[in-house]
Formats: sequence, C-alpha cells, structure tokens
Amino acid sequence: MSAALLDLVGYPAAALTTIAFLPQALHSWRTRDLSGISLPMYALFTLGVAFWLAYGILLGSMPIIIGNGITLALASVVLFLKLLHIREGG
Amino acid sequence: MSAALLDLVGYPAAALTTIAFLPQALHSWRTRDLSGISLPMYALFTLGVAFWLAYGILLGSMPIIIGNGITLALASVVLFLKLLHIREGG
Repeated sequence: MSAALLDLVGYPAAALTTIAFLPQALHSWRTRDLSGISLPMYALFTLGVAFWLAYGILLGSMPIIIGNGITLALASVVLFLKLLHIREGG
Repeated sequence: MSAALLDLVGYPAAALTTIAFLPQALHSWRTRDLSGISLPMYALFTLGVAFWLAYGILLGSMPIIIGNGITLALASVVLFLKLLHIREGG
C-alpha cells in the first residue's frame, strides 16, 4: 500500500472525526454545563481514544496519532470538567 | 511491531469507542427524539468514520475495520433517523 494513498485517506478521517468532536468540547468549556454528559460513557470514550493513540504509535500511523492525540486532549478537558461538576454537587 | 501486541491494543480501542457510541444510537432509535442531534456535526462524524473504515481496509487492520464498521452502521442509522425527523418538520 502506498504511503501517499494511506495519507490521502487517513488525514481526512482524522480531520473529520476531530472536527466533529470540537463543538462538544467548546460547548462544555464555555457553558460549564456538564449535566448532559454521561460520566461512564465519557470515561470509556476517553480511554478508547487513549488506546487508539497507543495503537497509532505502535503502528507508526501519523493520522491516527494526530487525530486521536487532539481528541484525547479535548476529551480529557471535558472529562475533567465533568469530574469537577460532580464534585461541586452537579 | 508484533501482530499480537498490536491486537492487544487495537481491539480494546475498537471495543471502547464502539461501546461508548452505543447508548447514543440506542437512545435515538428508541425515543426517535433527534432534536438534540446536530445534523452538520453528525454528517461530518459519519463521513469521518467511513474514511477510518477505508483507512483500516487499506492498512489491513482488523481492529480499525471492525470498530469503524460497527460505528459506521450505527451512525448511519442515527443520521437516517435525523433526516427523517427533519423531513417531518422536527
């Protein structure tokens, strides 16, 4: 498989799923309204993205590393805000 | 990179992000309440997952193919319900 073709498919994949996740992160950050976020689901998702990042590193796939690296950073912020929200009794 | 180690990281990744997506799909299917779903974001996400599936096929990665294959099927159902919802004036 040519690296060029892989990149041609991988980078749009990474861009699309990362962009689709951005509004959630921005919304949570701006409003600090985390009531609609399910902690167990979000924790599973964040852990899953961390595994995908590790998978990308093992595979040496830059689209997987970049896409999941950014998503992991954003998801971690939302997860942290959710945990703060719970601690504050929300 | 050993195939066994790759699978050991890839399959949990696929399982976690797919499981985290399930409640959304089940909720949309059961309630038919699509008002909280953003069509542009969902369309981007679904297209992104389709690109990841293609990437997995090019790469010959079963975790990517299985995880994104299932997620694509579920996301397509939600997207279809959302389009029906809009058509019905929702």
